[in-house]
Parts: sequence; C-alpha cells; structure tokens
Amino acid sequence: MVNVGILGATGMVGQRFIQLLADHPDFEVTALTASSRSAGKKYEDAVTWHLETKIPDAVKDTVVVNTDPREVKDVEIVFSALPSQNAAKVEPKFAEAGMKVASNASAMRMEPDVPLVVPEVNPEHLDLIETQQKRRGWDGFIVTNPNCSTIALVMTLKPLYDQFNIKRVYVSTMQAVSGAGYNGVPSMAIVDNLVPFIGEEEEKMESETLHLLGDFDGETVNNANFGVSASCHRVAVLDGHTEAVFIEMDDDFDLDEVKGSLTNFKGLPQKLNLYSAPEDPVVIREEDNRPQPRMDRMAGNGMAVSVGRLRRDEVYSNSLKYVLVGHNTIRGAAGASILNAELINEIL
Amino acid sequence: MVNVGILGATGMVGQRFIQLLADHPDFEVTALTASSRSAGKKYEDAVTWHLETKIPDAVKDTVVVNTDPREVKDVEIVFSALPSQNAAKVEPKFAEAGMKVASNASAMRMEPDVPLVVPEVNPEHLDLIETQQKRRGWDGFIVTNPNCSTIALVMTLKPLYDQFNIKRVYVSTMQAVSGAGYNGVPSMAIVDNLVPFIGEEEEKMESETLHLLGDFDGETVNNANFGVSASCHRVAVLDGHTEAVFIEMDDDFDLDEVKGSLTNFKGLPQKLNLYSAPEDPVVIREEDNRPQPRMDRMAGNGMAVSVGRLRRDEVYSNSLKYVLVGHNTIRGAAGASILNAELINEIL
Amino acid sequence: MVNVGILGATGMVGQRFIQLLADHPDFEVTALTASSRSAGKKYEDAVTWHLETKIPDAVKDTVVVNTDPREVKDVEIVFSALPSQNAAKVEPKFAEAGMKVASNASAMRMEPDVPLVVPEVNPEHLDLIETQQKRRGWDGFIVTNPNCSTIALVMTLKPLYDQFNIKRVYVSTMQAVSGAGYNGVPSMAIVDNLVPFIGEEEEKMESETLHLLGDFDGETVNNANFGVSASCHRVAVLDGHTEAVFIEMDDDFDLDEVKGSLTNFKGLPQKLNLYSAPEDPVVIREEDNRPQPRMDRMAGNGMAVSVGRLRRDEVYSNSLKYVLVGHNTIRGAAGASILNAELINEIL
Amino acid sequence: MVNVGILGATGMVGQRFIQLLADHPDFEVTALTASSRSAGKKYEDAVTWHLETKIPDAVKDTVVVNTDPREVKDVEIVFSALPSQNAAKVEPKFAEAGMKVASNASAMRMEPDVPLVVPEVNPEHLDLIETQQKRRGWDGFIVTNPNCSTIALVMTLKPLYDQFNIKRVYVSTMQAVSGAGYNGVPSMAIVDNLVPFIGEEEEKMESETLHLLGDFDGETVNNANFGVSASCHRVAVLDGHTEAVFIEMDDDFDLDEVKGSLTNFKGLPQKLNLYSAPEDPVVIREEDNRPQPRMDRMAGNGMAVSVGRLRRDEVYSNSLKYVLVGHNTIRGAAGASILNAELINEIL
Repeated sequence: MVNVGILGATGMVGQRFIQLLADHPDFEVTALTASSRSAGKKYEDAVTWHLETKIPDAVKDTVVVNTDPREVKDVEIVFSALPSQNAAKVEPKFAEAGMKVASNASAMRMEPDVPLVVPEVNPEHLDLIETQQKRRGWDGFIVTNPNCSTIALVMTLKPLYDQFNIKRVYVSTMQAVSGAGYNGVPSMAIVDNLVPFIGEEEEKMESETLHLLGDFDGETVNNANFGVSASCHRVAVLDGHTEAVFIEMDDDFDLDEVKGSLTNFKGLPQKLNLYSAPEDPVVIREEDNRPQPRMDRMAGNGMAVSVGRLRRDEVYSNSLKYVLVGHNTIRGAAGASILNAELINEIL
Repeated sequence: MVNVGILGATGMVGQRFIQLLADHPDFEVTALTASSRSAGKKYEDAVTWHLETKIPDAVKDTVVVNTDPREVKDVEIVFSALPSQNAAKVEPKFAEAGMKVASNASAMRMEPDVPLVVPEVNPEHLDLIETQQKRRGWDGFIVTNPNCSTIALVMTLKPLYDQFNIKRVYVSTMQAVSGAGYNGVPSMAIVDNLVPFIGEEEEKMESETLHLLGDFDGETVNNANFGVSASCHRVAVLDGHTEAVFIEMDDDFDLDEVKGSLTNFKGLPQKLNLYSAPEDPVVIREEDNRPQPRMDRMAGNGMAVSVGRLRRDEVYSNSLKYVLVGHNTIRGAAGASILNAELINEIL
Repeated sequence: MVNVGILGATGMVGQRFIQLLADHPDFEVTALTASSRSAGKKYEDAVTWHLETKIPDAVKDTVVVNTDPREVKDVEIVFSALPSQNAAKVEPKFAEAGMKVASNASAMRMEPDVPLVVPEVNPEHLDLIETQQKRRGWDGFIVTNPNCSTIALVMTLKPLYDQFNIKRVYVSTMQAVSGAGYNGVPSMAIVDNLVPFIGEEEEKMESETLHLLGDFDGETVNNANFGVSASCHRVAVLDGHTEAVFIEMDDDFDLDEVKGSLTNFKGLPQKLNLYSAPEDPVVIREEDNRPQPRMDRMAGNGMAVSVGRLRRDEVYSNSLKYVLVGHNTIRGAAGASILNAELINEIL
Repeated sequence: MVNVGILGATGMVGQRFIQLLADHPDFEVTALTASSRSAGKKYEDAVTWHLETKIPDAVKDTVVVNTDPREVKDVEIVFSALPSQNAAKVEPKFAEAGMKVASNASAMRMEPDVPLVVPEVNPEHLDLIETQQKRRGWDGFIVTNPNCSTIALVMTLKPLYDQFNIKRVYVSTMQAVSGAGYNGVPSMAIVDNLVPFIGEEEEKMESETLHLLGDFDGETVNNANFGVSASCHRVAVLDGHTEAVFIEMDDDFDLDEVKGSLTNFKGLPQKLNLYSAPEDPVVIREEDNRPQPRMDRMAGNGMAVSVGRLRRDEVYSNSLKYVLVGHNTIRGAAGASILNAELINEIL
C-alpha cells in the first residue's frame, strides 16, 4: 500500500477524495491537511460532511494537520484539493519535499513543465515530469488534471480528433452547482433560475482542451490546431455537468464511424486495468432524451462520460452534434487526480 | 373595441391569452372555446387556472363553446392556442367563416401562403394574406407566429442580419418547463436534473428563423441564406427560455457596433406604438451574470428579449457570442399572437 | 430459491421491486405482469425505466404477461404494485389460485381478516392469515403493508408506545414527489412551490397507525387507544418523506429514556436476521439540522427510519417533538412488501 | 410627505423596504444606511440588487451613509433591516436622537417597554411607547414587528382567539429560503432536499405569538394563556412561508363559525384604510390543494395571509386544522414594519 495524503481535505473535493479512496486497493490515506482552523482536530470534528455516504471509519479519527510538507510525514503521494491561490504557493513545497503531487487545482496547469493529463487522452505528457524535476531541482513533482467541464469534453474529443479532422468546436454547458463548492451557489440564485456565467470557466475549456490534445515533442506541448469556443452556465442540478457540443469537421464524415470511434475508445488506463478506470470511458446512450445528469452521472462509477443525441447537423452536413454528461466532482475532479496517481504509480 | 375569441382557452397558453387581454384597450374577449368536455360550462368552472393572477372577472362567467366557427358569433379575430393537430383541422374553418386567425399553433406556419410573422422582424410578410385569401377563397385568413425559442432568437438576429454578414449560427437552449404545458414535464424528470431533448424544437428553430429573415418578393418568401443549428434542452425553470448563441460572421466586426445595433433596434410595432409592443425589443444587460430567466423574463412586460454576455469569441475573432432570455409564454406565445393581431388591426 | 412475481411491474413501485430483488438470496423474479398494452413484450421494451441503476440483466428479456393468475405459473409469492382499484379485483384471484400476495396496494389493508403488517411493529398480526384462508377458502393469502408515510411514523411510535403512555400524536408531513408516481406531480406544481394536499393520505395515516399498534386477540385487531392527527404536504424532494411529529404523553417522561427506547429498538426481522432488515430500524441523528431527506433516505439501505431533533416540548413538558425521514419507495413501499415476504417465508 | 430612512438598506429586507416604499403616498425615502464598506457610494453601486423589479430611480443615486444617527439628517422615521446584533446597539441611538424606529430586527422585541405589534392584532400595545420614552428619556422610540412565521400565524389566531377558547396550538412550518437572506441557504442544501431546522425560529414563534395576543394593562403585556409548539423547516421555495396549524380548543366549535370568524376579520388598519393594509387580512381558499406559496404569497399585494384546508380534526372533534401561506419578506418583514409606521403616523 502507498501512503497518500489529501491537501484541503475538508472541502467538497477533499471529501470526494476521502470517499473515493476509502476502499482503494493501492492507496491508504494517512495524512489530511486543512487550514489552521482545523489543524489539530480529528477529521470528523473538523469537517462538515456533505456527502450522502458516511465518513469512512478509517479517517474519522485522523488528526488534521496544517497544509505544510513538514507536517505530512511518510507520504508518497498527495492529492491536492486546494483553492487555486493556495495551491500556487503550497504545491511546489510538497514537490520540493519529495512528494508526488496529483493536483486538481488550476494554479499550475498551464506551467510549461507541469503535465496536464487525462490518462485516457494524453498519458505521454507525463514525460514532462523529468523536465520538471531537472529544471526545478525537485525530488517530487506535480501532475495536474484539467477543469471538470474540460475533462468530460476532451474525453469525447480524443477519439474523434484521432480519426477525423476537427475544424471548430462550439460547446454550451449546463453545469451542476457542486462545481462551485458547498456554499458557492445560493439557492436564491438557482431555484426557478439559472446563471449564465461561471468565472474563468470558458477560458479554461478553450485553452486546456487544445493543450490536452497537443503533441508532446519530448520538450514541450504543441497545442492542437483547432479552436474551442465555450459558453458556460450554471443550472439547478446537484452533480453532473451536461454539455451541448457542436463540431465542424473539415470534411464530410460517416455517422456510424463517429459512433464506432466513441464506442470503441479505450485508453491506457483501460489497457493497464487501473482500479478507477471505467471499462468504457465513453458510454453511448441511444434514447432520444439521454444523457441526463441525474440518471447518467454515475456511469462507470462516476468515471465515464455519457454521450447521447449523436447526430449529423441537419444544416451543415460536415458538422456533428451531441450532448454529454460527466460527473463533475468524480471524473471532473477527485477521480481525475486519483486516476492520474494510479497511472503514475503503475508506470513511473 | 374589436370582439375577439380564444380557441383552446383552458390550456396554459389559453390562460395567458386571457390574462394578457384582460385590460386590452382595443380587444374585448367575447368568445372562449375548448373541447366538448368543457363546452357549456362557465369558464371558471371549465378551467384549472394555473396563473398567479386571478381569473379576470370579465371572463369568469363566459360560457365556453365548442371550437367550431358556428358557435363563435360576432367575433372579428380569434386567437388560437390549439394543439397543432387540432389547429390544422380547425383554423382553416374559422378563416373560411371570415374570421382573422392569429395562431400560436405550429400547424400552418410553413404553408407558403400563410404569413409567419414577428412584427419587429418581418411585418411585410403580412402581404401574403392577400395571396392566401385569393388562393383559398377565404374571407378571413390565418397569421401565425413562430415557436417560442425561435421568436427570442430571431428578435436578436434581425438587427444583426441587417447590418452584418451572418454566416452560421449555433444556438443551445435552456428552456422553461411551462413550454411543455402544465402537465408536460413531471417533477421527477426535472428536480436535480435536466432533459436534453424537446420534440421537434430544433427543427423549428432551424427552419423558422431563416423563413422569418427571408425576403418576400410579393409572391413567396425566399429564406435567408445562412444556417442555424440548434440543440434544445429543458431545465428546472418555470418561465423564460435562455439561449446561448454563437454567430460566425463572414467578416470581422466591431463589438460596439453590434451592441449599438441591438440597443437601437426598433421595429414597426415601436413606430406604430402598438399597445403590447415593448419600448425596446432588445434590452442589453451589462452585468456579467445576466440575463437570468427569473430576473429578466418580465422585461418589457414579458415582451422584450434580454441580451447579455455580449462578447467577441476569444478563439474566432469573426465570431460573436451572447446569451439571451425571453419569456416563452408571453413573448414566445400568447403575447406574440396578440402583437400580430394588433399590427393587423392597425395596418389592414 | 423461491420463485416470485411482480404485479404491475412497469410502474415506479414495480421498478423498485425489480431493483431491490435483483440480488436477493432467497427470491428469484420469474414473472412480471402489467396491463395488456405491455403483455407480450420483453420487460426492457415494455418499461420506461426511471431508476438510476440499470435494469437488472435477469429480467431484461422476461416476457411481461397480463395480471391474471392463469398467466403466472410456478410462482409462490407475488408482490403487488398495482393501483388500488385494480388490486381490489385482482389480488384475491391470485390468493385464490394459491399464491401468497405481499401487497403494497391500499385496497385490502382495512379488511378485518387481512394482516396489515410492518414486521418490526406487529408481526403477530400475521396469524390473521389462518382466519383469512378459512373464511375465504383460499389456499393462498394476502398480506399488506401500510402507506409510505404511515410506515415511517409507526416504526418510531412502536418503541415509544410500548414504554410510554401516548395520548395524542400530531404529524405534519413533507412528502417526496416519487410517492405520486412518475407523472404524479407536474414540475409546474412543485418548482418554487409546494402542494399542501395529498388525496386520502391523512386518512390513511390516522387509521393505519392505530391498527398497526392494535392488539390482536386471536380473532380481530383492536386498535390502539390514542389518536393521530395528520396534515400532509408535497415538497420538491425526489425520494424520502420527512415528518414533524408532536406527541403528547399522559405523563412526564425522561428524554434519555425516550432516546434509549428508539436507539435500542429491535424487532423480529432483526432477531431473525432477515435479508432486507436494517440493523437498526431507527437511527438517531444528533446533528441539529438532520435528518434531511437527501442525506438520510438511504440509511439502512433505505430500510431504516432516521430520527433527529428529538426534544422535549418547551411549552408542554409532557410533550415530545422530533423529525423523521424514511425512504418512501423503499421502506415505504417495495421494501416493506419484501420484508413482509421474507418474514412469511421464514416463519410460516 | 414624511422623510424616512432605511437602516441596512443593501440586504434582502432592505431591498424590500426600498421596493415597497417606491410609490408610497406618505413616505419619502431620503436616507439609506449600510456598513462602512458601502458608505459613500451611490445606492446602485453599493447594492447587489436581487429583486425582479428594477431599483427605483428615486434612490439609485442616493449616497449611502453609515448606520449612525449623526449621518441621517431630517428624517422622522427609520425602518430597520439590521441584523439583530447590530440592531441592539444601533436602534436605541436612533431613538435617542429623536427618530421613530420601525424595526424588523429581533433584538428589542422582547424588551418589556418596546411594543411588538401587528397592526391588525394588537395596535393597543403602541401605548407602551409613552412608557418607553419616559423610562429611557428618549424623544424618539422603537416599535418592532415579530418574526415572519409568527406574523402569518398570529394573524389567523387573532380572530379565533377572540371568539373561541384556544387550548393548545401545534404548528409545523415549511419556510422559504429568502428568509435566511440571499446567501443564507446554499443550493446544495435545498435541491432535492429540505432542512428541518431554523436557528431560534421555534423559540420566536412560541414566545412572540403569546405576547402579541397578550393583554396590555396600561403598564405591561400579560401573555395569552395557552401554548404554541412549533417545528420549523426550510424548503425549496423562494418566497412565502407555509404553515400547518393544529389547534385544540377547550370546547366543541362550529366550523362555519370558525370560517366566518376568519373571513370577516378586520383590524384597525382596515378601518383606518392604511395604504399598505390588505382589504382582507385573511383570505380563505376553498380549493382542496391551496394555499400554495407560489400561487398565494402575493394575496393582498403580499400583505394578506391565505388560509385553506380549514377542517375539523377527524380524530379530535374539538380540534381544528388548517394550512396558511404568508409572504415572508413582505407581510413577514418589510411590509410589517411599514404598516406599523403607517399606523403610528396616523394615530400618534
């Protein structure tokens, strides 16, 4: 068993890490960090637990420490659920102290020597770790996963990008409130309403996607050569982001081939049979009114992306349309970092 | 005062007609029709009233009759809130009997001699009435308004289409449950969920929009020469459709000109000062998180469309993005038919 | 393995039966019935599946038959998820044909020779079966469980009734929409709203509770000798009924004894270790803002009732107040019938 | 016109004061206070406006000042929307400075010389003002209104209390999220959920109700001599508190008399024809599924309480049950203080 820690263990994503790691066959949670307000308390006293499953017995009595590498002992991997500003300051310290940081924070994602990875999409970007360690003189390293809405999108774009010539992508999201944290969206903002804005979300989707599909030439990542234009909106759904995707192809395409491409998609995690890897990264729904967030967010234990309403555009014959649903706090956050760590643990 | 009737007066759109016509300066509701189950009853006994305002006193005791022109006497205009299948059969009979039919039903919208009109957008299409009457030998006629989601979209496209070269439009909707009628969307389908499908909605948006912006050459309407691609979704909002719009222009554009074009847009209803015409058909919101359906659906008494998040696409410099909100059962249904009738009443 | 059938297998409660019986160690689902519209179809083609888990493979291809004992072969127990009117006609035929009917329908609950049973509360009422079979000349029999809101209430009243003198009970419910069936509550009735009425629900709570706590003297059940007064309301919750309970006792009481009474409560299902029996029928929550339906409905796999805010009334020192949450379609419907069948299977 | 100020003008209740006073015939808003963060800014820059109507033009440019009587000039009445802790410190200073304080805060409600008033219920308690001014040596004074859920309840109890012998009252509330302020209830707490706890709410309902119905003997208020026991819950409704009320009477009663008592109830505001007084303080709904918060909260412009499901208890013949709905931020907060001020303005 590999000892792991969770940075920022009391927030919503921290709680998901704890839930998902409770029965993990390879990782054992031995350290939990939080702000100084919580440090010194037992986890069950420090946290306001918001998940429907119980706090796992194994961590109930774990004493929370400060988010400082000197207080986190005998740990090989730390998962970071820190807010972005904190992450920028603290994650490098953990890497410097020799720990492997699997981060869900956005702070370091766009650093040229920090891999931004979705294991099914661009595992080869992990080779950047070597560059990172050399350049920064670290024994440990930082690996990041993208933003929740990007992950779901890019998992469906990857097989298409490999087989077809994507020219432009337009995506309109309907995102769950849990993405903003427990207190992020007041009920008065969302009952009988929606909010057509999520800070920096569109920018992340537009830049991260191309980076993830970019070529790694051994030194740097060269972004994929098309564009993604996003419009992001918050709706009255607890978990599960829904995205309406429009793809302009350079050429005409066969819809059955598109479908086959998505259905047959397997990545390295599937080949390596990683613990958290869903059998099918992309699940195709044939019903005309699916995927729906409440019905489909738990596909593949929350690690698969469901795609439905796959159709050729009636107007532009070289355009494709579909709707996807992905679980934003499992596949889109804690589960993404865990899969990254599983991959690292297996191949490094 | 012009005597008017409402066909299908007990449903959700029928109730909106009654609410909106209650204090109308020119129209007096003197006839209400419904199915044979309701015929013979007083309106207040026939209807399950679902609006938050009370049933207007003037129609409470009106005896409902069958939807048959022989039972509707001394009426000049009838508003049709009929389901599409019924409308196809019944509306022509009313036109034949000499009445002016302002219909919200989709049945006759795409008939080449039936005007499909949004008064701010294409009032000149009303000239088709003459063709219609000649060809069909009717004393009355039928005029239709488009689908709710189309109306809001086309009201924002019209000023842009006049001033810029639109190449492609992608639109992703987040539509209110009232659009499906009172029993249309079960709560189990929409609490903590959304439904990414609305039957025939995308087809209507894609075809009606181009028809509305088409040229009328005196005989037929020649559709506008670009494409609209829609993805339609139902969300947990009572009233007010939200639409994320992406527009590819042929050329570069100035964002301030776009904004000016929308802000200054006035149509014939504004010039004629029609009773239901909003002062500004399009209202620009500058806040970064507006328009929101609950906050903005009643702009212009529910007859204006609110536009926000107007921005140049960061990826494609000749593309424009914005979010709009329009009231689906006022501007998008009953109010649309009433404004059509006001225009007809003024100019014919 | 005992072969079992499900009557009314395509509705919401029918689906729950199928879900809960999927991995049952003693019962194997070998027959599914529905209306003639569905008869002859494979289950997966006949049903519009609304649960978040998939249709179990074992029943996907089962051919649905009519709800007629002649079409249900080689089955020992049938679970009835029929609407009440149908149940009154059809359930007796199945009992006459020799089958054991475990019914969730209300039709037969108040027949004097039909046991109305919650296994933790009044298992001894099952002795009525003998009377029933003799009197009606049936080889099989009918056993019923109470209404969803009654079950949750009575499970908390039972230990208190045994230890304290209950004088009056007032209960105000906040019930989930799933209780009305998939199409039962339109979203327009419940978004930003609640409905303070559920047909016949108050009557059921008021009569069934006293019957369940009544003495069985070998021939008939003599109702418990206090009163229950209910006010029932529908709120925007998918699953899980919440009830605010006020109990006037005859005498003063010790709050710790009340708590101990609820905490230590075990019934026959717990003693017999029945498969669906929750370890603790009543779970006490100490947090000041629990139980909550989304957080607590799955306690004991949906078979336990969660109780919180247990407090002496500040105004009436011999009164007790608490809030409970129970899962209405598991403990309150399908799970209740299954637990009845498990008990019958064990002791008869 | 009387010049009035609003203390705490940027919060939710402050916004309601501004909205309701916009077209007031007797009061003109000339001063707005808020925290030091907002002081010095124009109101429209200081506030995040959350109501569906626009910020009234008259106050848009009003410069917000600190909540300090020295900064509030030439004002006769101030309305207090302050949080309770602030109110305790600040309201006396305004009274000392000679202003009439109509407060919605709970801080001073239970002071023996501060009138706690609902104008339809206990206007005679205003005579306490004289005692208050003498004892405290103030030129101004403080008048308070009760908690939102208490107001709605007591308006229905008043006519019953006058005509019948009330022995006990049990009340279970289903309260709107707006009662907790804009950020008070996270969407994650209320989507597909409810929260069965509101801090100090039950205590307020239980004590304030008896105080309001108490006798004023010229010196002090002697509480009414029965008990109210409350259980308070938050549900997914934006505005409008719903309450299920159970009343034990000492004697048998005639249900028609009860109904007549509620229907015919008029208070001093109705007799004086005060501007904000609803024509009928209590509106009886005859439909079996009303009152509902979304449909009935605006009865009497949000100042009336709607009562439905009025019925004799089937179990206890001397008990009465009904359900009420009242608007929590109009009748239950800002509107209550305004009606108090109108009454004071008329009779003092």
